[in-house]
Amino acid sequence: MHQLPDLLDRIAAYAARNPFPGTPRELYEPCDYMLTLGGKRLRPALLLMAYELFSDDPKQALPAAWAVELFHNFTLLHDDIMDAAPLRRGKPTVHTRWNITTGILSGDVMLIHAYRHLAATGPADLVADLVQIFNRVAVEVCEGQQYDMNFETRQDVQLAEYMRMIELKTAVLLGGALEMGARCAGAAGADCEHLYQFGRLAGIAFQIQDDLLDTYGDPAKFGKQVGGDILQNKKTWLVLKTLEIASNADRAELGRWMHTGPDEPGKVEAVRAIFDRNGIPELVLAEKQRFQNEAFAHLQSVQVPETRKAVLKKTVENLLERDN
Amino acid sequence: MHQLPDLLDRIAAYAARNPFPGTPRELYEPCDYMLTLGGKRLRPALLLMAYELFSDDPKQALPAAWAVELFHNFTLLHDDIMDAAPLRRGKPTVHTRWNITTGILSGDVMLIHAYRHLAATGPADLVADLVQIFNRVAVEVCEGQQYDMNFETRQDVQLAEYMRMIELKTAVLLGGALEMGARCAGAAGADCEHLYQFGRLAGIAFQIQDDLLDTYGDPAKFGKQVGGDILQNKKTWLVLKTLEIASNADRAELGRWMHTGPDEPGKVEAVRAIFDRNGIPELVLAEKQRFQNEAFAHLQSVQVPETRKAVLKKTVENLLERDN
Repeated sequence: MHQLPDLLDRIAAYAARNPFPGTPRELYEPCDYMLTLGGKRLRPALLLMAYELFSDDPKQALPAAWAVELFHNFTLLHDDIMDAAPLRRGKPTVHTRWNITTGILSGDVMLIHAYRHLAATGPADLVADLVQIFNRVAVEVCEGQQYDMNFETRQDVQLAEYMRMIELKTAVLLGGALEMGARCAGAAGADCEHLYQFGRLAGIAFQIQDDLLDTYGDPAKFGKQVGGDILQNKKTWLVLKTLEIASNADRAELGRWMHTGPDEPGKVEAVRAIFDRNGIPELVLAEKQRFQNEAFAHLQSVQVPETRKAVLKKTVENLLERDN
Repeated sequence: MHQLPDLLDRIAAYAARNPFPGTPRELYEPCDYMLTLGGKRLRPALLLMAYELFSDDPKQALPAAWAVELFHNFTLLHDDIMDAAPLRRGKPTVHTRWNITTGILSGDVMLIHAYRHLAATGPADLVADLVQIFNRVAVEVCEGQQYDMNFETRQDVQLAEYMRMIELKTAVLLGGALEMGARCAGAAGADCEHLYQFGRLAGIAFQIQDDLLDTYGDPAKFGKQVGGDILQNKKTWLVLKTLEIASNADRAELGRWMHTGPDEPGKVEAVRAIFDRNGIPELVLAEKQRFQNEAFAHLQSVQVPETRKAVLKKTVENLLERDN
């Protein structure tokens, strides 16, 4: 079993050995650039960790791991266009540095290259299974993005709909990555399913935590501007829960703030005060913990010795224990 | 063996039995709409015809046929955004009827659904082979679209580069469709390759013919405005061949016209006169015929009785014998 930094090295080495084609440069340069913005390569690392629960040399799982990373970057690239986001991690997004046309086509080809890596994974029955898992998850991610966009203009979003949206948009890909890693190692169907559920439920817990941190995080540690969701009137778990349980007066006050612009003085403090007096931070933490517990119960059920689970367990625990 | 109308019925019935999911409606309604603009379903029909060279019941090839049609529609949907095209076949394009964001995401999910149909084709070794062919062709189509866009702003495009562009952007998909049909039927590798080459070369011949018809077609029969390529300063086979072989004076005159707008009086007639005095129509026809001959030599080489080839042969001949 390998630790996270070692696995990240192997992923980087695989990517370096399997670059995009050199031409047309106008198509692939933005793909390479996108990969420099894409982040921590958590998904392919989790895929390899799931593989290593069952089998020692993760080489066979590298193409599938890289396929998941390319897919994730494809979604970020197209989402940035759809969200009209000028920056990602402080650098210009692809459509800002080039243009929308380039962003669309480079994203498209990146998705197809993800399937090329999948198809290079090995025996035909493995490839067919991986493509099937990948397809299912990829469709769900697109559907989640659509729901997310729908919610921007809807005034009647329910918390249950929001939970389903974050599940589709982000959690199923974590589950799918773990499931694919297990499948690459030839794991039993029940273990593949437990790992899928582990990833899916941990992914939901992570997103709930993300909503909490956006409003209550430590500014010194949180990567983005604390209070950003409030300023942008985002319908987060905190908002939707408040609308579900608060008094008419609090709901009306929250509604009024959510019709103001991002420059409204005192907005973050006022909305945070509404959350506070309705006990929202505690409710968020309890809900996150509920999903986290469910997730780890599935990891517990995977039929391999506990010692083999140490790296995967620690990695996901770290993700879910960021400072509140 | 079934005739074209019968095959089109089977494709329509498969599509009706396997619709997009009902929700989210905002994601899939544009996909359904796109399919009504997409056209004659030539590619899936060719795939089934290739299958029927070797095997009688085309049922097994229907998922792959529909995958190719969905892929084709995905490319049209995203190309329309990139080309800022307001209309397709006289109806509003997806991004015109909805918006660019909808066009991007609906196209993305349509591409992934194409892979879902592929994955439903049957035995794992067939699925793995089909995904590999599909991936190769899909990457090439994206690369062709990129070259096409590059050429819009380049002043030094060579005829050989143009030929490569049309090969990638449109011809390889015809070849790939035929190859996939043959592979579904369990055809020998050599026959799969001959059918790929048949489709690829016929596709190139078709595109060359399309350039000719745009300028010299019968206005009563040609679907689009005759002379449209000239008005839009498109660097077609006719233009690039003229720039290759004409006198300095003719090249300079053509260059001047290509710096005028679409409303310049007398433009179509003047450019056509340059083509005429350089013998371009005859050269186009000869070049088209050369590719057509090469294509049919590959069909000839496929190791099945000639009688089985009748439907495929006639269908492609009809495509290549539109009125000049």
